Amino acid sequence: MENTPVSNDTVRLTANQFGKAENRVMRVYRDTKRHSIRDLNVTSQLRGDFQTAHTEGNNENVVPTDTQKNTIFAKAKENGIASPEQFLIGLADHFTSSFDWVTGGRWAAEEYGWSRINDHDHAFYRSAPEIRTALLVRDGDRDIMISGFYDLTVLKTTESGFVGYPKDRYTTLEETEDRVLATDIATRWRYNTTDVDFEATYQKVKDIILETFTDHYSYALQHTLYQMAEKVIAAVPQIDEIKFSCPNKHHFLFDLDRFGLENPNEVFYAADRPYGLIEATVARKSAALDERDWVGVAGFC
Amino acid sequence: MENTPVSNDTVRLTANQFGKAENRVMRVYRDTKRHSIRDLNVTSQLRGDFQTAHTEGNNENVVPTDTQKNTIFAKAKENGIASPEQFLIGLADHFTSSFDWVTGGRWAAEEYGWSRINDHDHAFYRSAPEIRTALLVRDGDRDIMISGFYDLTVLKTTESGFVGYPKDRYTTLEETEDRVLATDIATRWRYNTTDVDFEATYQKVKDIILETFTDHYSYALQHTLYQMAEKVIAAVPQIDEIKFSCPNKHHFLFDLDRFGLENPNEVFYAADRPYGLIEATVARKSAALDERDWVGVAGFC
Amino acid sequence: MENTPVSNDTVRLTANQFGKAENRVMRVYRDTKRHSIRDLNVTSQLRGDFQTAHTEGNNENVVPTDTQKNTIFAKAKENGIASPEQFLIGLADHFTSSFDWVTGGRWAAEEYGWSRINDHDHAFYRSAPEIRTALLVRDGDRDIMISGFYDLTVLKTTESGFVGYPKDRYTTLEETEDRVLATDIATRWRYNTTDVDFEATYQKVKDIILETFTDHYSYALQHTLYQMAEKVIAAVPQIDEIKFSCPNKHHFLFDLDRFGLENPNEVFYAADRPYGLIEATVARKSAALDERDWVGVAGFC
Amino acid sequence: MENTPVSNDTVRLTANQFGKAENRVMRVYRDTKRHSIRDLNVTSQLRGDFQTAHTEGNNENVVPTDTQKNTIFAKAKENGIASPEQFLIGLADHFTSSFDWVTGGRWAAEEYGWSRINDHDHAFYRSAPEIRTALLVRDGDRDIMISGFYDLTVLKTTESGFVGYPKDRYTTLEETEDRVLATDIATRWRYNTTDVDFEATYQKVKDIILETFTDHYSYALQHTLYQMAEKVIAAVPQIDEIKFSCPNKHHFLFDLDRFGLENPNEVFYAADRPYGLIEATVARKSAALDERDWVGVAGFC
Repeated sequence: MENTPVSNDTVRLTANQFGKAENRVMRVYRDTKRHSIRDLNVTSQLRGDFQTAHTEGNNENVVPTDTQKNTIFAKAKENGIASPEQFLIGLADHFTSSFDWVTGGRWAAEEYGWSRINDHDHAFYRSAPEIRTALLVRDGDRDIMISGFYDLTVLKTTESGFVGYPKDRYTTLEETEDRVLATDIATRWRYNTTDVDFEATYQKVKDIILETFTDHYSYALQHTLYQMAEKVIAAVPQIDEIKFSCPNKHHFLFDLDRFGLENPNEVFYAADRPYGLIEATVARKSAALDERDWVGVAGFC
Repeated sequence: MENTPVSNDTVRLTANQFGKAENRVMRVYRDTKRHSIRDLNVTSQLRGDFQTAHTEGNNENVVPTDTQKNTIFAKAKENGIASPEQFLIGLADHFTSSFDWVTGGRWAAEEYGWSRINDHDHAFYRSAPEIRTALLVRDGDRDIMISGFYDLTVLKTTESGFVGYPKDRYTTLEETEDRVLATDIATRWRYNTTDVDFEATYQKVKDIILETFTDHYSYALQHTLYQMAEKVIAAVPQIDEIKFSCPNKHHFLFDLDRFGLENPNEVFYAADRPYGLIEATVARKSAALDERDWVGVAGFC
Repeated sequence: MENTPVSNDTVRLTANQFGKAENRVMRVYRDTKRHSIRDLNVTSQLRGDFQTAHTEGNNENVVPTDTQKNTIFAKAKENGIASPEQFLIGLADHFTSSFDWVTGGRWAAEEYGWSRINDHDHAFYRSAPEIRTALLVRDGDRDIMISGFYDLTVLKTTESGFVGYPKDRYTTLEETEDRVLATDIATRWRYNTTDVDFEATYQKVKDIILETFTDHYSYALQHTLYQMAEKVIAAVPQIDEIKFSCPNKHHFLFDLDRFGLENPNEVFYAADRPYGLIEATVARKSAALDERDWVGVAGFC
Repeated sequence: MENTPVSNDTVRLTANQFGKAENRVMRVYRDTKRHSIRDLNVTSQLRGDFQTAHTEGNNENVVPTDTQKNTIFAKAKENGIASPEQFLIGLADHFTSSFDWVTGGRWAAEEYGWSRINDHDHAFYRSAPEIRTALLVRDGDRDIMISGFYDLTVLKTTESGFVGYPKDRYTTLEETEDRVLATDIATRWRYNTTDVDFEATYQKVKDIILETFTDHYSYALQHTLYQMAEKVIAAVPQIDEIKFSCPNKHHFLFDLDRFGLENPNEVFYAADRPYGLIEATVARKSAALDERDWVGVAGFC
């Protein structure tokens, strides 16, 4: 077992983390005849003193990713899953307290929603259109808790337009005051505390976002996302920032005029690519912000 | 433009079809303030006399796939979309009546389900967990109409077991009388007529399947699928055959005993691959059957 | 454990099969310092007398899907993997000889291709663009062996056109004698015997298909697919039929004229959906054919 | 067209960007008989003064995403595609110089690799296993250029182990000094200049990474990734940081002992989820670093 000698004054190890990704945990509550379930996809990654694992192949601090997996399933029994967020806090507490050299980490979960079939006691179907997300980054004493969801696809058939934009040599788009507006809502919000009723707040944020989608004439997706954001932050004092990353899922009016047919906004071609991509962050005015909080949060500006 | 001469007594052209696949049609009904929508993914393929297109590069009969696309969008205006099935019949009628050499074809649609946001007049979210399917194969005077759906994920937390199976040298599975049973229901049923209320029947079949999933102790997925099938055929005289192709989405009890923890069917690992794959066809006893009706129907035995 | 009584004179069980899908088997050959690998995704499904499993929940004949999985991995050791086809024959032989009531089944494999990194003895990268497929359907004494591949994406920048097609009210496509032609080749061929050098024949068929893509002016994808098919059947006497199912991956010339720029077939927009879908079967003239051989072969006409 | 009044002292708009995503551009060079191609997927997003678009629905600064799309295709003609990186620089230069209020943005490209079929002049197959990436973030005078690739799947059948790790209550993994090591390499490196031969450097980095995968006994994926990183930075002075995010694609030895069979590292089960996830950043010691450079770079710590 010879090995390449590692000796180099040129480089240094900076950000790093490791763990087990996408542990699919199904937790069943069956204390009464009426069962309930939580269905999560959990990732655990540790940060801390792992220098020599990288530079020397010394694994004495490397808590195996297999152990991290086992711990996730054990904690689903020991702690239960009151919410994805609480479950992640339990994991973070376990790992940072169990190993001196683990000073923090990144724990993430997706949750899939189920409903009862005909109000049955133990039979369910996967119902929720959106995927719920939770992300906890711990760095020493500091916790960043970011919740959200994605793949909530919404569409309105009118009360949307796009006019008044600048034109240049490459502009061919025509203005319209009546179009289909459709998007897959992906959003993440950052809590300023972990003292939150995560279940109720999730539902509240989702309700505000859906309601806002319906309640105004949209001058552009930017205009609509901002209003969603504004209302969420106004309504939930524990949220300091919210981000949206939303495609403009184009529904192009199909040109039927060529065939002698009228098309008064009735027949559309739903395009795949390219698509508009609108991203915005709205923050509480009074909050102290640090954009590094969002490093490693995929797909948001 | 030289070309490879085609001259060969060895081969003959047999089954063939061509067209435009995955035309994403959104049809908006906006005759009143309360809009409604149908959201389809439509494929059209023609069959008939296309011999020399293949053997000689002679396109005089080749109705362009681009024309087939245009026609789909035009028919969404001209015919509307009362149901995916009716829409496909309209396409088949058009193509077989417009071109002498088109003697049949294959037309398919998927439909995506939407619900109103807070009962709003023109704002919707994509809600249906399952994808609805319709398939029409026309061969001269004969129509085969096959409807179905897929990706309806269901799970029960008890009232399922698997015992009494044969054991051999390679068997390590332990018997259980209480397990999680989960599957993604994919089903296709063949109508014996096109004189059907396709909308009501679709809902009826889906309701029977969901209800049956909940109403019995399942000795195996085979046992459950058969009961679904039996009830559908008993309830809908216009259906002669129904097929299921369903994964057994394993939820393995996680071994917590190793950590000194009990796990009375509370914590499961939801596995991806491999998965059980159970497929069955149930037919009306009195019906004349021909398995060639199912050639080209992907993913069913 | 009460259960819904099954008693119905209306229906009968017809085609059915069950097993374990997508067993990911990596077989390493390490008898010398120069290792080699085979990387397969194997599905096993049994057919035979499984009537009462469906109708009564009687599992006495139900060889567990878990046992089928174990057998696949055991046979990877016992039989080795000389080719995907040979491996499937070994599975079929095992199951039909081990269980009286198993009269046949369906066994399928995909194979992923790897190459050595810098001709290294035991380090590889996944190289093959295409996925190789094999499918064996056994029914009593009869074996149907179908091999193939998919996802071999090819493109030519010229020597392709589309002219001479019929025009109707819905036709807007313009003729062209110089376009980009691109497709993902998916093909399946049926052997008339299992006495074949499957490794050499696979390479030969693939070589013919690629070479034919380059060697002629294409009047349409139909024209090109037919030539591929014809040459394969002419060259390989053990193949009686070959099918192609190929998208026409449209590369649309982007209209730069609007910006005062010429575009002599230099800048294209590669579209996703809709796409042309061209499917054809070519058979040996002398062969007896039965289209039921193709039931359950997904995505081919 | 009434509208919800926007008036709120609670919030402020912070990070935002908008544009057109996933423009699939195929550029053909056909000046001689021997054609060549570049196949890109390009995203353009603008940053600058877009405040009132969000807060008031005022689009006077909103360069339409449709215009951004048109510009991408026009620049593919006007500028050509010497490299993905150069192409993005051209886009950034265009947008920041054309519109006063556009102070920066984010431009990204993926490139798909093609090879000639049998060295043909104008026929190609998609060959490259990996997807090449380029990302340019411009903020006023400052450019951050990050290149990389993903989906380069590699595997070694020996010369890898994992021992010496800490054990706790939840540890069940056994030590091994001979295992299969497999990963999908995803990497991103940050240049300290845009004065780079991007084509040659890309090839050089990829070659170093592949060679390093083969040249040592791996004590863990961390150990291997670090060596790759170290060698890249030592070899390319224009690179200041490199990140890896690599799954440990587990190949579990299948337990054949239960069937009376030996398995000396010959038959493995290739698992999907969960998987190890190892991420590390290595930086040039002398470089000034700012982790905000990586905000919005998906999937890396």
